[in-house]
Amino acid sequence: MPTQETILQLIKVVGEAHAITNLEDMSPYTTEWRGLWTGKTPLVLRPASTDEVARIMAIASATGTRIVPQGGHTGLVGGGTPTDNGEEVVLSLSRLNRVREVDAEDLSMTVEAGCTLQSVQAIAEKAGLLFPLSLASEGSCQIGGNLASNAGGLNVLAYGNARDLCLGLEVVLADGRVWNGLRKLRKDNTGYDLKNLFIGSEGTLGVITAAVLKLFPRPKTVETALFAVPSATAAIALFNALKSASNSSLTACELLPDIGMEFTARHFGLRNPVATQAPWYVLAELSDATPGVLEKVFGTCDVSDAVIAQSEQQRVEIWDLREKLSESQKPEGGSIKHDISVPVSRIALFIEQASQAVTAAFPGARPVCFGHIGDGNLHFNVSQPVGADKQVFLDQWEAMNDVVFALVKKHSGSISAEHGIGRLKRHRMTEIKSTVELDLMRSMKAAFDPHGILNPGRVLP
Amino acid sequence: MPTQETILQLIKVVGEAHAITNLEDMSPYTTEWRGLWTGKTPLVLRPASTDEVARIMAIASATGTRIVPQGGHTGLVGGGTPTDNGEEVVLSLSRLNRVREVDAEDLSMTVEAGCTLQSVQAIAEKAGLLFPLSLASEGSCQIGGNLASNAGGLNVLAYGNARDLCLGLEVVLADGRVWNGLRKLRKDNTGYDLKNLFIGSEGTLGVITAAVLKLFPRPKTVETALFAVPSATAAIALFNALKSASNSSLTACELLPDIGMEFTARHFGLRNPVATQAPWYVLAELSDATPGVLEKVFGTCDVSDAVIAQSEQQRVEIWDLREKLSESQKPEGGSIKHDISVPVSRIALFIEQASQAVTAAFPGARPVCFGHIGDGNLHFNVSQPVGADKQVFLDQWEAMNDVVFALVKKHSGSISAEHGIGRLKRHRMTEIKSTVELDLMRSMKAAFDPHGILNPGRVLP
Repeated sequence: MPTQETILQLIKVVGEAHAITNLEDMSPYTTEWRGLWTGKTPLVLRPASTDEVARIMAIASATGTRIVPQGGHTGLVGGGTPTDNGEEVVLSLSRLNRVREVDAEDLSMTVEAGCTLQSVQAIAEKAGLLFPLSLASEGSCQIGGNLASNAGGLNVLAYGNARDLCLGLEVVLADGRVWNGLRKLRKDNTGYDLKNLFIGSEGTLGVITAAVLKLFPRPKTVETALFAVPSATAAIALFNALKSASNSSLTACELLPDIGMEFTARHFGLRNPVATQAPWYVLAELSDATPGVLEKVFGTCDVSDAVIAQSEQQRVEIWDLREKLSESQKPEGGSIKHDISVPVSRIALFIEQASQAVTAAFPGARPVCFGHIGDGNLHFNVSQPVGADKQVFLDQWEAMNDVVFALVKKHSGSISAEHGIGRLKRHRMTEIKSTVELDLMRSMKAAFDPHGILNPGRVLP
Repeated sequence: MPTQETILQLIKVVGEAHAITNLEDMSPYTTEWRGLWTGKTPLVLRPASTDEVARIMAIASATGTRIVPQGGHTGLVGGGTPTDNGEEVVLSLSRLNRVREVDAEDLSMTVEAGCTLQSVQAIAEKAGLLFPLSLASEGSCQIGGNLASNAGGLNVLAYGNARDLCLGLEVVLADGRVWNGLRKLRKDNTGYDLKNLFIGSEGTLGVITAAVLKLFPRPKTVETALFAVPSATAAIALFNALKSASNSSLTACELLPDIGMEFTARHFGLRNPVATQAPWYVLAELSDATPGVLEKVFGTCDVSDAVIAQSEQQRVEIWDLREKLSESQKPEGGSIKHDISVPVSRIALFIEQASQAVTAAFPGARPVCFGHIGDGNLHFNVSQPVGADKQVFLDQWEAMNDVVFALVKKHSGSISAEHGIGRLKRHRMTEIKSTVELDLMRSMKAAFDPHGILNPGRVLP
């Protein structure tokens, strides 16, 4: 627990107006938005500059104070929520929200960690360009958190994940020193790749304070279609046909289950634009593609029906079906989540086996599986049986994870495709990583954060 | 120097038939192909499997034997050539050349480190797919070396460098343990990014023994053009117009200088297909682009003339002009090389300033600057003055580097865009890296290779 003296020292860095010590104002920083993770902290610090972050870390390092870096606090694995022990000081990056530069000529922008993803997208658009990272929480998540967790989302297929969209970083180290790696270069082979080491390390190796992001030309044409298909196997075949016909023009390819259409209709009144009901749907989007690809695959693939958006409004309506899927599970009661990935060729088999295994072990449980086909990334969520007790169902979280993760391992998949490890899956690391890999990770942690003050108890088992 | 006992132990691992101890047979392993780097070694080991590499490293670790991992020995910075002191054992990966798997469905292949780049390309092609890494030495360089040095080449613009083309690695660590990171997944957020740390570390952190590579659909249409432009500024504007019109369909965009055309004509009899002579030329290639882009930019950009390849033979002839550039400098005498990058927007200004600075400081020196426009990567080579003494000219290598690198720094560029640091630029690291960055690199080296036996004296100053 930090001493009163340490707390006063830390408050002095940011000024009293930007340090939160009363319980009520702290609540957004100590309670995760779904309420799944809550914790306690003696202090929330809201620095305004890299220099203030550096001074905070220098004090933390000297006093052994544990620091939890926090962005928009939208993470799903408990990485940014302080623990219950009340020893962890929250370091919010929200006030580091300046756009330092937009460089339209070099297709890059330099932004501070606290910029929301949506604001980054909007600034790129204002410059006539595209920042393609896109995910459900984009209105509130912050780019620093996106990078710390290597966020994925809807356009990874064509543009890559957060890692691929970042050219350079500025990072405050555990001891308060600043690594200035804010490079704009497309090629630079001078030494070890520090940038990618910090990205995805979930705040355990350093505090990301700014980043140089890649921008892209905005596509001139966007075509969006919703296909009804008879099976997951047909969905994968359709993806392969689209990919083969349009290559990098295929900028999104999402799998939606029929039960999801039922949920979004029931709870949000959304209309399925495809007339024919089918077990699965594929939402595909092409950017700047040679014309005729959608029509061609419709003619040659095992597709029972399809609709191509004829207006921006129809396009938005189709996307709405995908984006409301997760939310539409809420009124159906408890949902046990699995953010997994498998090789694309295994998707159909995995879905079949996991659905069977889950419904056999948990009778009445309703798999609601959707995801990003091209990335092999499935959100294998499972809604509770109709009329069951929510808490009793949720108490089976780990038991159901065991069933699903066993199949993930069988298909050489990942138990965390895009959400990270945080605290939620930390105890699984010894199951999925070799001793060699864990040793290497521990040696890096020891090298970067010898006193173990940066987001302790996350990622590493 | 390894003892006789250690040498015998090491030979026993690979068998006498695969250990080289006589000077003559060693020469390809101790002399770099251009003859710029030569060294001595007591032993060249040619293991056939990951297990043999692991046993070699275990012995090396126990005995403090220094190991130089070597692929096709085509590197340009002395990284894979043993030093003069005769203490370094060469570990050739050439016999690890099995293709472990081609997975056309998941667009990946798993290959061992010793496969040549050309064989990897050919195997992908045989499966109807594309492995896009392409560079001058592809006939002899090996994929393990490509990854260890994060090779770039001609298609980085659209497909990325070696790092971007790799999904997973198998690495033997300094102590002989094996890290199996042979993952095929497109998304996997479970812990620190070890893969990217090994890639580009030039054999100083571990020995890459196998890799999972990304494959792509082969483009259905390829259009290749050579444009004559009045200035480097016009070349950049042309690149921007092409990029904006065709986005990811622009798969190559190379800058060629008039003096290069003169050299390739004089020494290889190559014909410039563009009728109008101009100070600069741009070689652009589009894959699966919407038709008409080349014609459109010709009509709207500052282009004095252009030719579009009408056959595969014409395409090959155009590419030949680019690929023979470096070689065509040889009959012109000594050439001092600079593999640099700057932000794309600075290319024209950099070329102007560097050409002026070099010809002012070294009268008669002839800049032959070519490179990859979209990556900001220029090979700012400088041929000796006509009739000058080759060695006297080459003795000015460091002095000319000083002049050019000063401008690289001014434009926030990199002094090694794609060739790496090796031994050639190691002494420059303290000039270009902050103390913080060098400290972080050293702490990683200490964590991964505590006895300093892996490629010592490379990369780190």
